[in-house]
Amino acid sequence: MKTSLCTTILYFFVFCFSSTLQAQTIRQYVSKNDKQMMEEYVRFLSIPNVSTDTVNIRKNAAFISEMMQRRGIKAELLTGTTAGVTPAVFGEIKTLGATRTIGFYAHYDGQPVNPKQWHEGLEPFKPVLITAPLESGGKILGPYKSGDAINPDWRISGRGAADDKAGVMAILNAYEALVKTGKRLNANIKFLFEGEEEVGSIHLDEIFKAHKSKLQADCWVIIDAPRHASGRKTIVYGVRGDVNMALTVYGAKRPLHSGNYGNWAPNPALKLAQLLTSMKDEKGQVLIKGFYDDVTPLTATEKKALAQIPDQDATLKKELGVHSPESPGRSLMEGIMVPTLNINGMQSGNVGPLASNIIPTKAEAVLDLRLVKGNDYKRQVEKVIGHIKNKGYQVVNGEPTEEERSKYPNLIRVDVKHGYNAQRTPMDLPIAKSIQAAIQSTTKEPVVAIPSMGGSLPLYLFEEILESKVITVPIVNYDNNQHAENENVKILYLWEGIETIAAIMQIK
Amino acid sequence: MKTSLCTTILYFFVFCFSSTLQAQTIRQYVSKNDKQMMEEYVRFLSIPNVSTDTVNIRKNAAFISEMMQRRGIKAELLTGTTAGVTPAVFGEIKTLGATRTIGFYAHYDGQPVNPKQWHEGLEPFKPVLITAPLESGGKILGPYKSGDAINPDWRISGRGAADDKAGVMAILNAYEALVKTGKRLNANIKFLFEGEEEVGSIHLDEIFKAHKSKLQADCWVIIDAPRHASGRKTIVYGVRGDVNMALTVYGAKRPLHSGNYGNWAPNPALKLAQLLTSMKDEKGQVLIKGFYDDVTPLTATEKKALAQIPDQDATLKKELGVHSPESPGRSLMEGIMVPTLNINGMQSGNVGPLASNIIPTKAEAVLDLRLVKGNDYKRQVEKVIGHIKNKGYQVVNGEPTEEERSKYPNLIRVDVKHGYNAQRTPMDLPIAKSIQAAIQSTTKEPVVAIPSMGGSLPLYLFEEILESKVITVPIVNYDNNQHAENENVKILYLWEGIETIAAIMQIK
Repeated sequence: MKTSLCTTILYFFVFCFSSTLQAQTIRQYVSKNDKQMMEEYVRFLSIPNVSTDTVNIRKNAAFISEMMQRRGIKAELLTGTTAGVTPAVFGEIKTLGATRTIGFYAHYDGQPVNPKQWHEGLEPFKPVLITAPLESGGKILGPYKSGDAINPDWRISGRGAADDKAGVMAILNAYEALVKTGKRLNANIKFLFEGEEEVGSIHLDEIFKAHKSKLQADCWVIIDAPRHASGRKTIVYGVRGDVNMALTVYGAKRPLHSGNYGNWAPNPALKLAQLLTSMKDEKGQVLIKGFYDDVTPLTATEKKALAQIPDQDATLKKELGVHSPESPGRSLMEGIMVPTLNINGMQSGNVGPLASNIIPTKAEAVLDLRLVKGNDYKRQVEKVIGHIKNKGYQVVNGEPTEEERSKYPNLIRVDVKHGYNAQRTPMDLPIAKSIQAAIQSTTKEPVVAIPSMGGSLPLYLFEEILESKVITVPIVNYDNNQHAENENVKILYLWEGIETIAAIMQIK
Repeated sequence: MKTSLCTTILYFFVFCFSSTLQAQTIRQYVSKNDKQMMEEYVRFLSIPNVSTDTVNIRKNAAFISEMMQRRGIKAELLTGTTAGVTPAVFGEIKTLGATRTIGFYAHYDGQPVNPKQWHEGLEPFKPVLITAPLESGGKILGPYKSGDAINPDWRISGRGAADDKAGVMAILNAYEALVKTGKRLNANIKFLFEGEEEVGSIHLDEIFKAHKSKLQADCWVIIDAPRHASGRKTIVYGVRGDVNMALTVYGAKRPLHSGNYGNWAPNPALKLAQLLTSMKDEKGQVLIKGFYDDVTPLTATEKKALAQIPDQDATLKKELGVHSPESPGRSLMEGIMVPTLNINGMQSGNVGPLASNIIPTKAEAVLDLRLVKGNDYKRQVEKVIGHIKNKGYQVVNGEPTEEERSKYPNLIRVDVKHGYNAQRTPMDLPIAKSIQAAIQSTTKEPVVAIPSMGGSLPLYLFEEILESKVITVPIVNYDNNQHAENENVKILYLWEGIETIAAIMQIK
């Protein structure tokens, strides 16, 4: 308890000497109300939020609506034309005499969970406090009990704790902090909380088209993704696009005894390994024809910004246990400006205790292609399919038919999931400069300005349909295990996120 | 019923014109006593026999002891030095003036069962008669009722019906047939029924060492495995050896967001794919240095035998949906005479609904290496490990340490499971010729003589510990679904198996 209070006080003083009076007021407010915010956040995290769990996902939307209503924001559920779609939660605050409208976006859905992969004592939807990441010797403190003091160095573990319920909680608490501390808003504020981001924002275009005028803003600020690994506050001007492809290579119709048929029956696991190997070399270079074509070159401002981003590669290598990066000599940030081809998962037959001496019937891999400005996701997928065909594969639409089996030596099924393109906002736009300055007003350390983050969000929709600018302001710790087991958020970063957002809400 | 009788009579007449008088006597005996044999066999199949079900497995041993005692063979349970081991059932018949001893081996344990995977109406341990395999339109006739006439074209379904209680029943009924028809035995006969074959005969060496003199024989005849797919009677002179290797390639310590770290963090799935690709080319040739060395060349007799084996490749291709074999132009039987490197399973991250946009922390593959005469399983494993090291991998003993991660770019764990070598008996040994001639005396069609089968059995133990020759005589149909759901045996093949074994029992 003592440690906790000391750290809080120390943090508060450090903060006071490094930021504006405005930011200090918000900090003070957060410090006084942290228990109440934590209590509400833990309840929010306890509602399962896997995007495809349509029953629970609506409970999250209802919870957010209540959070908004408690803060005097009228909540509205927005859907598009498709029936039964998970709604986005919308709200707005009109400011007298405002000339600008700033929108704040976060998403409340999370990636799928496999509870078995979580650390003992951690469960995706039973949030608990931990002293540090468990991989680094952190300890489990247990569920948060109302009224207990909170050490900002602690973390909360649970699916969505960082990605991206943190965005929802920080936006709504920032607004509340401004209201409660009597701060004046200068712009109109809009709120939008999406529930399908982790499945590719598949209906966001519909929602945007159906509610175009309601969602109009000069700039949408996306509160998602992690801050730079240096821990410094971060602004991001672009995102990569993304598209997934699932590949299934077929072998014989039934699993075969590897003794009776080994050296005769083709092995789909080996064929898939060979196909994947043909796509990318040992230096991380994708070998697919034209894969790096189409990329829009960086501007001078972007190149300069890139050069100023603190180099975290050495720290990351140590922390992640990586001896050398995939492409020797290329930094993390340089790699992010280039399209990727990554294997998310690969499976054939069984490993471990279920392994048996067979030749499997099929082998599957899931790929994700990250795209940069200039790439078109459909064109990028076509390049991969073209490569597969050049390797002698016949692409089939499902389980191969007898005719296909008799006709073609190599059979593959390719399932392409919904994808979208990258987006990049010019760094020298006036609104961009205002937002960056607002963030800078809350911290002494220089804000890290990133031309494009590595992650993907369908931000092109904001530009193309809403005709709005769009800028991302990440708030959570970079080591948050997002998308994976043991997801967590550092509490300090939640508090700092609230301050950051409050500052942006006040730009003129 | 009418069909059944007609088929039996027809079969009997065809047989009479195609085999020796000796075989005809046995056939006649079988024909008269088929109901009684079936009734006993069905009771035997009703006792669950999964190797690890130690309670039921002993009931099988007790049942076999009774079967032997009913036939005047004193049964003895043999164990080794390890306490609580499933016993092998032994018996012997001494023949006055015999100069040779022939042993007959079968195993009474079966592979694990998942009753849910069995066809509706079939249960692993409730044997029923079926008209044909259900996949090919067969019908379920129900349990065998004592006294009902039996159509030899029918099958009995149940775990162990083919693999390998068929061996036990055929050996004991062959002996009984000889006794009841007043035939003279020329050799001493020994019987050995093992209860741990399906878990790798893990204590057979102990049993052999503890009872070496008791188990002495000129030749042990293994009644196991399916006849050649042509349906012709079969003799097999060898088996492949086998050893499994589990490989784990490591990536970063924690799963990483593929957007934030894609193009920077090494992907263990790709590294594994590249490593496996480096081991075997697209024509099925293993690229590991010296992999095909050590192989004992086939003798002229073996080459000739190989050339005479009926070619089943076209039929198999159609049945299994295989367009072309792994090594173009190489037949199934030719491939069996060569060591293999096969991927049993491969896994990294997730595919399907659990797939997420990450870079996985590790990638695993399980390999099995089938070995032929001349290979040593330890040496073969060393070749694979040498190849892995040549590819720049550091082999670690478990989850990599911090130091290993900082020191080596490529980390792999290699777990080698228990293995054993191949065994091959020369085809021109006098005893081998006698046995093949005995089988040939029971059929007009040429016996299929196979220098080595594709599967593996620890037959080297018979040679190395007992210093005996060893030959395998498969009796069951090849489409018996052994090791899988809906296991079944064609009744005709049981009757023919009895005739075959009776003929072997009479060699001088």
